[in-house]
Amino acid sequence: MTEATATIGLTGLAVMGRNLARNIARHGHTIAVHNRTHARTESLIADHGDEGDFVATESLEDFVAAIEKPRVVLVMVKAGDPTDAVIDDLVPLLEEGDIVVDCGNAHFADTIRREKQLEEHGLHFVGTGVSGGEEGALNGPSIMVGGSDQAYERLGPILESIAAQVDGEPCCAHVGTGGAGHFVKMVHNGIEYADMQLIAESYDLLRSIGDLEPAAIADVFADWNGGELESFLIQMTADVLRHTDAGGQPFVDVVRDAAEQKGTGRWTVQSALDLGVPITGIAEATFARSLSGHTDQRAAARKVFSTSPEDDTVEVDRDAFVDDVRAALYSSKVVAYAQGFDQIAVGAETHGWDIDLGQVAKIWRDGCIIRARFLGRITEAYADEPDLTTLLTTEFFAEAVKEGVDAWRHVVATAAQGGVPVPAFGSSLSYFDGLRRERLPAALIQALRDNFGAHTYQRVDREGTFHTAWAGDLSESEQH
Amino acid sequence: MTEATATIGLTGLAVMGRNLARNIARHGHTIAVHNRTHARTESLIADHGDEGDFVATESLEDFVAAIEKPRVVLVMVKAGDPTDAVIDDLVPLLEEGDIVVDCGNAHFADTIRREKQLEEHGLHFVGTGVSGGEEGALNGPSIMVGGSDQAYERLGPILESIAAQVDGEPCCAHVGTGGAGHFVKMVHNGIEYADMQLIAESYDLLRSIGDLEPAAIADVFADWNGGELESFLIQMTADVLRHTDAGGQPFVDVVRDAAEQKGTGRWTVQSALDLGVPITGIAEATFARSLSGHTDQRAAARKVFSTSPEDDTVEVDRDAFVDDVRAALYSSKVVAYAQGFDQIAVGAETHGWDIDLGQVAKIWRDGCIIRARFLGRITEAYADEPDLTTLLTTEFFAEAVKEGVDAWRHVVATAAQGGVPVPAFGSSLSYFDGLRRERLPAALIQALRDNFGAHTYQRVDREGTFHTAWAGDLSESEQH
Repeated sequence: MTEATATIGLTGLAVMGRNLARNIARHGHTIAVHNRTHARTESLIADHGDEGDFVATESLEDFVAAIEKPRVVLVMVKAGDPTDAVIDDLVPLLEEGDIVVDCGNAHFADTIRREKQLEEHGLHFVGTGVSGGEEGALNGPSIMVGGSDQAYERLGPILESIAAQVDGEPCCAHVGTGGAGHFVKMVHNGIEYADMQLIAESYDLLRSIGDLEPAAIADVFADWNGGELESFLIQMTADVLRHTDAGGQPFVDVVRDAAEQKGTGRWTVQSALDLGVPITGIAEATFARSLSGHTDQRAAARKVFSTSPEDDTVEVDRDAFVDDVRAALYSSKVVAYAQGFDQIAVGAETHGWDIDLGQVAKIWRDGCIIRARFLGRITEAYADEPDLTTLLTTEFFAEAVKEGVDAWRHVVATAAQGGVPVPAFGSSLSYFDGLRRERLPAALIQALRDNFGAHTYQRVDREGTFHTAWAGDLSESEQH
Repeated sequence: MTEATATIGLTGLAVMGRNLARNIARHGHTIAVHNRTHARTESLIADHGDEGDFVATESLEDFVAAIEKPRVVLVMVKAGDPTDAVIDDLVPLLEEGDIVVDCGNAHFADTIRREKQLEEHGLHFVGTGVSGGEEGALNGPSIMVGGSDQAYERLGPILESIAAQVDGEPCCAHVGTGGAGHFVKMVHNGIEYADMQLIAESYDLLRSIGDLEPAAIADVFADWNGGELESFLIQMTADVLRHTDAGGQPFVDVVRDAAEQKGTGRWTVQSALDLGVPITGIAEATFARSLSGHTDQRAAARKVFSTSPEDDTVEVDRDAFVDDVRAALYSSKVVAYAQGFDQIAVGAETHGWDIDLGQVAKIWRDGCIIRARFLGRITEAYADEPDLTTLLTTEFFAEAVKEGVDAWRHVVATAAQGGVPVPAFGSSLSYFDGLRRERLPAALIQALRDNFGAHTYQRVDREGTFHTAWAGDLSESEQH
């Protein structure tokens, strides 16, 4: 009989699981490790067994038996069927009160389903978002934990110890019950899509309209990283743009320009549509990736429309333009984050999760892909006003947007004239202008809907629901 | 025992069902009618019994017994649970070979599920999209029929007789098997969202930047309706804008500017995300409606950002601007339809439906909300080239877009400068510029993804999948 000596167990030792296990072991926790193909477990022990107390197990039975009760079992396998398969194998081996933690990129709806399923067996199921990629998993990720309070009591201290730390505070929290952890992680990834698309548009504008080479644009991004845009992705963009291929040409020029995606951007937009939250920046970013992959359509369109307009249609003062792009990037980024936090707020309300939005911003300050200086300001905004209507109108961000709005308008206008696609810049500006507009043409849409579909309308001057007899005498009647 | 004298039956006599039943009776088909609350059946017979041969029935048993075998039962109740409830009640009363036709706005995934379910009972289930609102249902809708060929043989002639007719051809077709009817109807509604949003943006630009009053804008739309924009919605917009409220003010000014939605726009975008088809126009239109309803956020943003910019920031030559907006509307509309037809093409391929896209455009030429002269051109384009890559590059549409593109750029730039939200205009232009661009900054996104997540990339100059050792010596390795 295997003796229960491990504080925690982890099954699924692909690169993320392996690094997470090492991180846990390095922090002094005895960890039982398991993988379907045992060779992976052996190689982990051979390569890194000296980094901490690992308990290598070959069978799932031995793995479970090696963990102290109530057991905490981290599962780090592919989202979808593989996760269900591991859970099905684990459940008969576990005992009441044990905790299964899914650290994969599950859809929050699956997490909700699985939590119910395990509850019937007296088990806790904790959907947990882990961001930071391989490097984060090893050296300190940002960890968004869902599930029950009781499970977090047992699990939280271990995860907090291995998370990234900012000013002595861990980038790990119990963000809410149920599927909240995976939901917040999903929106994090959606924001990451928007962030990267905005960076890509900035680069494209600087290169084609600003007429700068990649190395010079790397300098621009490095410079921006010293200001309010300071973030992991801005710094990484500078690094990538400075990198040259073996042949000496800019690395970015040898990479095929078809962006791929693993689905979380899509999930974020689909969820936002269900919740009625306009997250236009994330949607455009997701669609821009799809577009880039439609090779046949792109070839056909290039052939027919290549000459409209030439890149030199617009002339700009280069230094001023670089500054304008920075302001446009920052303002659009504020919009993307405002939209993402709206989605978390409405998602929390809809699903009954008590999510502290300021805390979410706080645990994103380090460890995760969208880590940025900027997030501290979001935490402050929610600290000042927990029921904030929109981040856009809080003092700090409102001032930033006001300061940048002329530049933002200039960049979007210049891109339109110059033939440079700016789906995320343009859409974010339209969102901003839509939100601040006294009257929207939605009134005309409602009038049309009443005309062709008798969908009724409301009036600005009195309560009630009305319909006009469009095909008759144009009289108005109140509907009951 | 009720004698089977009816050619067809219809249950669900709310306004759409009632009008569809009258349309069928008027075309010489004997129709059995039924409603859960019998009073509705009685009122149909009392008000319109003389329009044709109705067989009024009170119980569902009598209703089914009144229809000739194999029976055709049209169901016109609310989508979702009410539809399932009616189906559950009907199934035990039907016999092998009978046909249940769901004419409601079901999600195509539900239709696929229901068809399987009824197949087990030897019954045909036919998801059918009916567009045209109340008026269309009565006088000739556009009808998109799914389900089996066998069912269409029995059902088709009746539906074709009651559909709108163009040059002696019915706006009704068996668009494909299975859920194809509801899928095509869903995309139709998505395109309708985009069409209306583009009209709304045009109106908004003419009013705030063109400085025209609603009555004058009505004249502009009436004028446009004489050209390539000729369509039901453009004509209706002229009518609505000309209409004044009892108090004498423009009707559009008394309608609350919060657009509502019934869900098909949302479904269209969610499906497009699953299919990887960028339908940015429909997405922006759907989100613009959501935005308009976020009253609290709008109030907050208005307070903080109302004065940036003033409406008179940009000056335009009014007549030229009206022409530019027309061109922008037309070009954006071409994009929205190209995107929608892409979605149908990919949906058909994914689900194994053999959809003739030219035929889809043909049956939308009359009866439905998006009916337009324009659609004849789409039919021609697919007749010339059934495996068309994108509608955008076909000769007719390419010429139209080339002619309008400078105006389109000018309008989007002017809107950005003038503070008028143009989510659909702007997003369509970015889609166009993205598609025609030699190199997209998606290359940078792939490089970043490889850097933070080891997601690998492809190269422009040789086959294979590659990864750069970003944290190491920056060497490149081929992945296997």
